[in-house]
Amino acid sequence: MSYSELTKEQLLQELSQLKAQYKGFVEKNLSLDMSRGKPCTEQLDISSPMLNVLCSDDLCISEQGFDCRNYGILDGIPAAKELMSHMLQVKPEQVFVGGNSSLNMMFDTIACFMTTPAAEGATPWFCVEDRKFLCPVPGYDRHFAITEYFGFQMIPVPMTEAGPDMDMVEKLVSSDPSIKGIWCVPKYANPTGITYSDETVRRFANLKPAAKDFRIMWDNAYCVHDVSDESDSLLSLMEECEKVGNADLPLVFSSTSKVTFPGAGVAAMGASENNMKILKKRYTTQTIGSDKLNMLRHLIFFKNFEGIKSHMQKHKAILKPRFDVVINKFREHLSASEIAQWTTPRGGYFVSIDVFPGTAKNVVKMCKEAGVVLTGAGATYPLGVDPEDKNIRIAPSYPSINELKLAMEVFCTCVRICAIEKLVG
Amino acid sequence: MSYSELTKEQLLQELSQLKAQYKGFVEKNLSLDMSRGKPCTEQLDISSPMLNVLCSDDLCISEQGFDCRNYGILDGIPAAKELMSHMLQVKPEQVFVGGNSSLNMMFDTIACFMTTPAAEGATPWFCVEDRKFLCPVPGYDRHFAITEYFGFQMIPVPMTEAGPDMDMVEKLVSSDPSIKGIWCVPKYANPTGITYSDETVRRFANLKPAAKDFRIMWDNAYCVHDVSDESDSLLSLMEECEKVGNADLPLVFSSTSKVTFPGAGVAAMGASENNMKILKKRYTTQTIGSDKLNMLRHLIFFKNFEGIKSHMQKHKAILKPRFDVVINKFREHLSASEIAQWTTPRGGYFVSIDVFPGTAKNVVKMCKEAGVVLTGAGATYPLGVDPEDKNIRIAPSYPSINELKLAMEVFCTCVRICAIEKLVG
Repeated sequence: MSYSELTKEQLLQELSQLKAQYKGFVEKNLSLDMSRGKPCTEQLDISSPMLNVLCSDDLCISEQGFDCRNYGILDGIPAAKELMSHMLQVKPEQVFVGGNSSLNMMFDTIACFMTTPAAEGATPWFCVEDRKFLCPVPGYDRHFAITEYFGFQMIPVPMTEAGPDMDMVEKLVSSDPSIKGIWCVPKYANPTGITYSDETVRRFANLKPAAKDFRIMWDNAYCVHDVSDESDSLLSLMEECEKVGNADLPLVFSSTSKVTFPGAGVAAMGASENNMKILKKRYTTQTIGSDKLNMLRHLIFFKNFEGIKSHMQKHKAILKPRFDVVINKFREHLSASEIAQWTTPRGGYFVSIDVFPGTAKNVVKMCKEAGVVLTGAGATYPLGVDPEDKNIRIAPSYPSINELKLAMEVFCTCVRICAIEKLVG
Repeated sequence: MSYSELTKEQLLQELSQLKAQYKGFVEKNLSLDMSRGKPCTEQLDISSPMLNVLCSDDLCISEQGFDCRNYGILDGIPAAKELMSHMLQVKPEQVFVGGNSSLNMMFDTIACFMTTPAAEGATPWFCVEDRKFLCPVPGYDRHFAITEYFGFQMIPVPMTEAGPDMDMVEKLVSSDPSIKGIWCVPKYANPTGITYSDETVRRFANLKPAAKDFRIMWDNAYCVHDVSDESDSLLSLMEECEKVGNADLPLVFSSTSKVTFPGAGVAAMGASENNMKILKKRYTTQTIGSDKLNMLRHLIFFKNFEGIKSHMQKHKAILKPRFDVVINKFREHLSASEIAQWTTPRGGYFVSIDVFPGTAKNVVKMCKEAGVVLTGAGATYPLGVDPEDKNIRIAPSYPSINELKLAMEVFCTCVRICAIEKLVG
């Protein structure tokens, strides 16, 4: 029954039952870390055969006859550019293949524009004192940390079922030239799991920014990461931008961190010719080239994009039951009380839940005291400040199914306790 | 006989013989690339067994029980920090292990200080309009390219047999607060091959810079790279700095690019606690961590620093005969004429030669026309401008012995032709 319909007495009775449950959990001395979207060991094992594919010297030679052990090839071997182009939804010639971290490429992109104009005639962002960045919320803490590091004022934009609130984005971007960009995870968004609608993508492509150096940081991290048998589809932002002559707007990123190994994947970015020219001027000064042997490992292991897609079926088989546990536990323990709303993603790494307003921090604290470490409350907001203190990101991938069931029971108990305590004052 | 003692007639006669020789070379249609310090295939092959050491899942677990396939460990696995500490001549806890490129770590260090104060109370270098950097010459073009990219005025400092001219360094650094750093390759310097003397290292450690954020960029790229049976030894700059309370002065870099694979080695830096705090604030925003599987590969392959040193004996066996060819050809073809001076390094990747002043560009051009591509003349100077147009960097590692013999004959012929043409006006 909805908590809003219970009397104070009924609530207090429920509270005392829940507290007894919680005490039981604490006595189990649990130690579960669900703080990050970290693949589990079972997931890592499915890619381990990739470690041994470079088993003779001649396999270190690329199709073009280039010895990948040696120096050279700033933007990645051509076959790797082709492979990554499918993840980025851009043309192979628009791809730059980097090291093991797309976050690093995003950081370097912002860093580049801090000291170098991002467009002809523009000012380096370091010189724009009131520089601002749009941050769809809830969103990804590591994105926000980059713009925080570089001193941007961050403007939260609410997420809807179809992506960021585009009315607000259009209004802000077209009116304020100090707004230099926006962070996006367009498919299976971190943490809500929603995918931007075709209309949202087209509205992004058609933006008319007041700043000529406004850029869309399009982190397509979960482009092939279904956790359901129905997968979402996402329009190519680059293609939509090209159609309307806005090719310099987007900078697109992805990686195989959650395809092969989080610690040793291959990252890549896609950009227009103009943007690439500016970024390559930096990269050519910064490095001779990223690890081409690791690119080759991926190429030999996957052969082509179809290989990646069929590999992702194995991840789905491991992840789907974990997502099901989370959603089922929520339904079982949180539906009746009507104190929380959550998403049911078809892909990605997270479930986003809004608990009773003003209780998220307490829920995370109580869970921690019972040995269940969650992503910090507020992490999904710029500077870690969730104004309503209600959003929590659940990362189901790392624990075992049984651990996850237990963790979700602890979590749901804490959500209900905190809600009642708030309700009864 | 010295060209300075020949009559004009004798010189012209010599010239006509040399031109006939040159014509013979051109007709061979050579195609030799000696432009970069690139290891040869034979050298790459000696490290190939490293590619297959991660042959089972359990080997991906570090000594501390950490699964190196997954996310985590920003500054590198502890055993990798220990291994690299010997190359950097710093304590393991002062090490940060990066990706495959120490150049990238140097770039990121300068980039960090461009937008963040390098010392408490200092100004980000981007705001220092007349920012300057000292560049020992001849030196490494990729170093100079970094400070050029970030808009530093570069002040050349002549190299001596013992390192940079320290009288000049001390005078400049103590008097001008806009001088923010100096580039150094302290052992087997690029390109002269000399190693800084103990006195030079101590004078560096005892610098009293006018700028509190002056930093020594100490690129110990060739720390274990002997090409002779007598090896040079280098004092630890960090230790010398610590002795005199100057631990924040140096930033030390090295990598296994020329130990294992140029394209897939492991890079690392060493820094004081203060410096590391500033840099880690950046790195923690930039990445979750570099490729730990590649660190593990190196650890399993080498076991310890002794393993690296004995591995380097194999490189020496391949490189020493190549360096001998260069020096012997110089002696054979250039000694008598007394028109050039060169170094005879005991390690590193280069031989530096000063040809007849005003002819270096022509020599490189003539060589190219005969199919022998050298490092561009001037490359060893900031902005590519060698004021006397005389220094050329020879990179003997990549060609075969026979190719190298031929290339050096072409080169010596060109050096003599250009000198005579200059002499006879």
